[in-house]
Amino acid sequence: MGSGPLAIGVDLGGTQLRAALIDRNGAVRNRKSVFTKAAGGPDVVLGQIEHLVGSVLQGVDGRDITGIGVSAPGPLDTRNGVALSIPTLAGFVDYPLAAALQKRLPFPVSLENDGISAAIGEWRFGAGRGFENVVYVTVSTGIGGGVIIDNRVLRGRLGMAGHIGHMILVPDGERCSCGNLGCFEAYASGSAFAARAMARAKHAATTLLGANGTAIDSPAVFSAARAGDALAQDLVGEEARILGTGFASLVHLFSPDVIVMGGGLSHEFDALYPAMSARLQECAMPAFKDVRIVRSELGENSGLVGAASLVHEKAENS
Amino acid sequence: MGSGPLAIGVDLGGTQLRAALIDRNGAVRNRKSVFTKAAGGPDVVLGQIEHLVGSVLQGVDGRDITGIGVSAPGPLDTRNGVALSIPTLAGFVDYPLAAALQKRLPFPVSLENDGISAAIGEWRFGAGRGFENVVYVTVSTGIGGGVIIDNRVLRGRLGMAGHIGHMILVPDGERCSCGNLGCFEAYASGSAFAARAMARAKHAATTLLGANGTAIDSPAVFSAARAGDALAQDLVGEEARILGTGFASLVHLFSPDVIVMGGGLSHEFDALYPAMSARLQECAMPAFKDVRIVRSELGENSGLVGAASLVHEKAENS
Repeated sequence: MGSGPLAIGVDLGGTQLRAALIDRNGAVRNRKSVFTKAAGGPDVVLGQIEHLVGSVLQGVDGRDITGIGVSAPGPLDTRNGVALSIPTLAGFVDYPLAAALQKRLPFPVSLENDGISAAIGEWRFGAGRGFENVVYVTVSTGIGGGVIIDNRVLRGRLGMAGHIGHMILVPDGERCSCGNLGCFEAYASGSAFAARAMARAKHAATTLLGANGTAIDSPAVFSAARAGDALAQDLVGEEARILGTGFASLVHLFSPDVIVMGGGLSHEFDALYPAMSARLQECAMPAFKDVRIVRSELGENSGLVGAASLVHEKAENS
Repeated sequence: MGSGPLAIGVDLGGTQLRAALIDRNGAVRNRKSVFTKAAGGPDVVLGQIEHLVGSVLQGVDGRDITGIGVSAPGPLDTRNGVALSIPTLAGFVDYPLAAALQKRLPFPVSLENDGISAAIGEWRFGAGRGFENVVYVTVSTGIGGGVIIDNRVLRGRLGMAGHIGHMILVPDGERCSCGNLGCFEAYASGSAFAARAMARAKHAATTLLGANGTAIDSPAVFSAARAGDALAQDLVGEEARILGTGFASLVHLFSPDVIVMGGGLSHEFDALYPAMSARLQECAMPAFKDVRIVRSELGENSGLVGAASLVHEKAENS
C-alpha cells in the first residue's frame, strides 16, 4: 500500500468487531479484530471500538486519515445515524450510534448498514466490480444483503432497503429470528440449514451426521456430504434449491447483472453452486435466465472495505 | 390545460390501446382508446398506434409536441427499445418496437415498461406524489409494478427491474402465466382470485356465487361479499391477506415510504384494505410497520401520464 489518503473501516458484528485501514483502491492494512462484548451495552462496545481504532492507527500519521466508516447490523436509520434495534447487541435500541461514536473519535464518522456496506465493498473492489447492477446476499447465521442498481446504492426510507432475509418465502411457515413466519432467513440461513440437519439426523437410519455425539453444524453437513453421506447430500441439495428459489425472486425484483453470495455458507459455494444455479435457471423468466451467481471475493473484509469506501467518496466529493 | 409543451402518452395493453396529450403538470387531454388487435401482429398494432396518435393530434399544433412516450408490457429491453416477448401480443418477440414506431411517427419516441411507466405517473402526479420511495403494484389480470427509490426510477439490467408479479410466494406452488410455479401473480392477481372463487363455489353448499348460472369474476365476488355471502367474504379476506403478505416482502426489500396499489382490483381497495393492511402490519419488522398502502390516484391514466412525463423530462434536460 502506497501513500495517499486512508479511511478506517470498522465492522461491528454481534460476534466479532473488526477494524483496518483501507486505501482508495480497497487494499486492507493493519487489520485487527476482537470478540464483541455483545452483552455489555453501548458504552462497553463503543469503548472497544475506540480502543481497536487506536491500535489500528499505531504508527500512522493521523493527517492521512480522512474518516471512519462503520458497518453495523440493522435495522439502522442511517439518515439520522440511529440504531433502531440491533437484535445481536444488547442495549442498541433507538441508540444514536453515529453521534456517540463521533464524540469518542477525532475523525468524521459515517454509519452504514452491514449488508449495504458489504454490497458496496464487493461492487467497488470484489466480485461485483464493473457491473451496474449487483445484489449482494450474505448467508450466515442470518441472511442480509445490499443492492446496487443503475450504479447507485439503494437506501430507501431510513436507509433500510435490502432486508433480503425477510422476504417471505413460505407464508405462515417457520418462525424467523425477526418474529415473523416464513422468511427467507428462516429457511436458507446457516442456522436454518443446521436445524434441518439436526432434525433429520434424529430420524435417519444411517448417517454420519451426529455419529459418536459429534456436533451437527453447517461445516459438518458439507463434510459428511463430501464423504458420501446420503442424508447430508440431500440436505446440501435442498439448501441450494432454497437459495436458488430466493435468488429467482431477487432477480425478478431488482434485475441485477449478478448475484454475489457472501457469508459463512459461501465457503461452500462450490458445493452449493450446481443445484443453486439450476434452480435459479428453472425459476427465472426467459429474459432473466443468464443472470449469474458468483462468490464474494472480499470475504470477511467486504463490510470493512465498503464502509471505508464511502468515506473516501465523501472526501473526494467535498 | 394551458399552452406549453405537450407530450403524447401511449399505453399499449393486451386489451386496450390508449393515447392522450399530457402537459407538464400531468393533465390529460384528447384521450382516445381502442381495443388492441392483439392477435394481428406488430404491423397491425403499430398501424393502430399511428392512427390513434393521429386522432389525438387533431386540431393541435405539431410544434407544441415534444415527443411520444410509449408504455408497453414487458419484458422489454428498454435500453435498446426491444420487446423481448410480450405474452399478450402476438409476434412481439425480439421485436425492435422503438425503432419501428420511430419510422411511423414524426416525434421522438421513448419506450418504457408499463409497470415502470405507471409507477412514474403515480410518483410524479398521483398517490406517490412527494415521496422519495414508492413501490407501485398493479393488480389486474396479472401483477406488475415499478419502483422508485431515493427519488430515482429503478431500471436495472436491460431496464427490467420491478417484475413484482414474479417474486415467488409459494415455492413449487400454482402454475403462473410465466411458466414458473408459485409466483405472487399466480396467487394474488385478479385471475387467480377469480379462479379460486370458481373452484370453491363448486363445492360450497350455499353461496350467491354462480347462482342461476351467473359468471364468477372478480366484481361478482366483491358484490356477493357486500351482499353478505360468507364464501365471498372469505375469498376477499384471503385475497387481501395474500396481497399483504407480498407487500411485506416488498417493504423489506425496497424500504418504500408507501405502496401504491393500482389495476383492476384497486377499484375494490376499500374492501381489501382492512385485511391487507393488517397482514402487512403483522408481517413487517417493527421498523417497517408504519409503511402505508394507498390506492392509485390516476387509475387507467397512470401509464400514459408516466410515459409522457419521461418525454417532458428529456425535453427539459436537453
